Amino acid sequence: MRFCPYAHRAHLVLAAKKVPFHAIYVNLTEKPEWLTNVSPLGKVPALEIVTVAKKPTLIESLVICEYLDEKYPENPLYPKDPLKKALDKILIERFAAVTTAMYKIFIGGPEKNPGALSDVSTGLDIYEKELAERGTPFFNGDKPGMLDYMIWPWCERSDIIPFLVGDRYKLDEKRFAKLLKWKDDMAQDPAVKSHYLNGETHANFLKTRRTGDPQYNMLVMRNPSTPAKRQRIH
Amino acid sequence: MRFCPYAHRAHLVLAAKKVPFHAIYVNLTEKPEWLTNVSPLGKVPALEIVTVAKKPTLIESLVICEYLDEKYPENPLYPKDPLKKALDKILIERFAAVTTAMYKIFIGGPEKNPGALSDVSTGLDIYEKELAERGTPFFNGDKPGMLDYMIWPWCERSDIIPFLVGDRYKLDEKRFAKLLKWKDDMAQDPAVKSHYLNGETHANFLKTRRTGDPQYNMLVMRNPSTPAKRQRIH
Repeated sequence: MRFCPYAHRAHLVLAAKKVPFHAIYVNLTEKPEWLTNVSPLGKVPALEIVTVAKKPTLIESLVICEYLDEKYPENPLYPKDPLKKALDKILIERFAAVTTAMYKIFIGGPEKNPGALSDVSTGLDIYEKELAERGTPFFNGDKPGMLDYMIWPWCERSDIIPFLVGDRYKLDEKRFAKLLKWKDDMAQDPAVKSHYLNGETHANFLKTRRTGDPQYNMLVMRNPSTPAKRQRIH
Repeated sequence: MRFCPYAHRAHLVLAAKKVPFHAIYVNLTEKPEWLTNVSPLGKVPALEIVTVAKKPTLIESLVICEYLDEKYPENPLYPKDPLKKALDKILIERFAAVTTAMYKIFIGGPEKNPGALSDVSTGLDIYEKELAERGTPFFNGDKPGMLDYMIWPWCERSDIIPFLVGDRYKLDEKRFAKLLKWKDDMAQDPAVKSHYLNGETHANFLKTRRTGDPQYNMLVMRNPSTPAKRQRIH
């Protein structure tokens, strides 16, 4: 699903690792019948490994990304030290506090969840502190690693917020100085660029989702050179 | 917390890896104040690494267990092949379907959750099939590995069920022939033995939990040689 933040994680690691792949986007409201063949719970992302006999399939975004990191050891995305690696994994898990608060804003709406905007900030505090302690532009050092990529999909989608609530909510530039700089630096990373959508586009998709009729093909429909568009015209 | 299945996971891997440790059990109803110093979300297990400067602490049972597996590479608990490892991780994740159904039985009671007992069986089907396909006594081969240990705490606690519902529910011996043999074999594993409690003991704790007054010290109180017992007498 083109707008799924978990599928986004897999795309980031595929791009960072320069692994060739073929993407098939699915409609999660009317799921294709074949989906449970590759993803038993009908979730995305699912990675079918077509180069291996019987074409085994992996699910769960973090499992997929860690598999890619181990299978393609060049440009490792985790620290080599087991303790540092474990600490990064914990920060990936703990980002759930931020994503939970963001979903409340995105799906329920900020009016119905008055505490959610400040929950996002509270959740982000530990990441600001962590960047300050590490003293590097990225959590992984001089370039993004697993932790950077695993939290990025929600950071990219934070640009939706102004389109929902206007200027009422902005991250405090002092409180989140390092994290805002990190976000700018991440936006320049080739893997991030390869799958990037701006806040307005994410917001437009979200609006269709909130009406109960998510436009999964939104990007394809807009591009006149694609078969989907031609089909639509005919 | 002595009866926590997630803390149990960490004990199994510490034992399998023969890593020396000092266990501190906590009361999760009246949490000690220091708990959030080592476990920011107040959860167990938490592993404080006292041999490293600043004594960093790890949380999340699977993160702790994977850290131990990487830090102490002898007797590796995961397959070396990244694909096989990823497939084992997915089976660890998917066991959540079984644990969710078990919690409904344990906490809500089987009467209030009439479908939960059959949900346990449906959830276990993929593990029976997997053991058959692998053709080995354990998921990891000739001895238990990460997948075996990560699902064991709930398998041990499945012996609670007869104490809750009597003989009404038993796993079908034909449908789960391999899994029941696996359970017997697991019970003989030294790491499993080192932290084992029988179904009656687990059931006794659960009963205190269901009354709203969990007896976290239940095992200590029963042992006349411990200070806790002496204190109780005085």
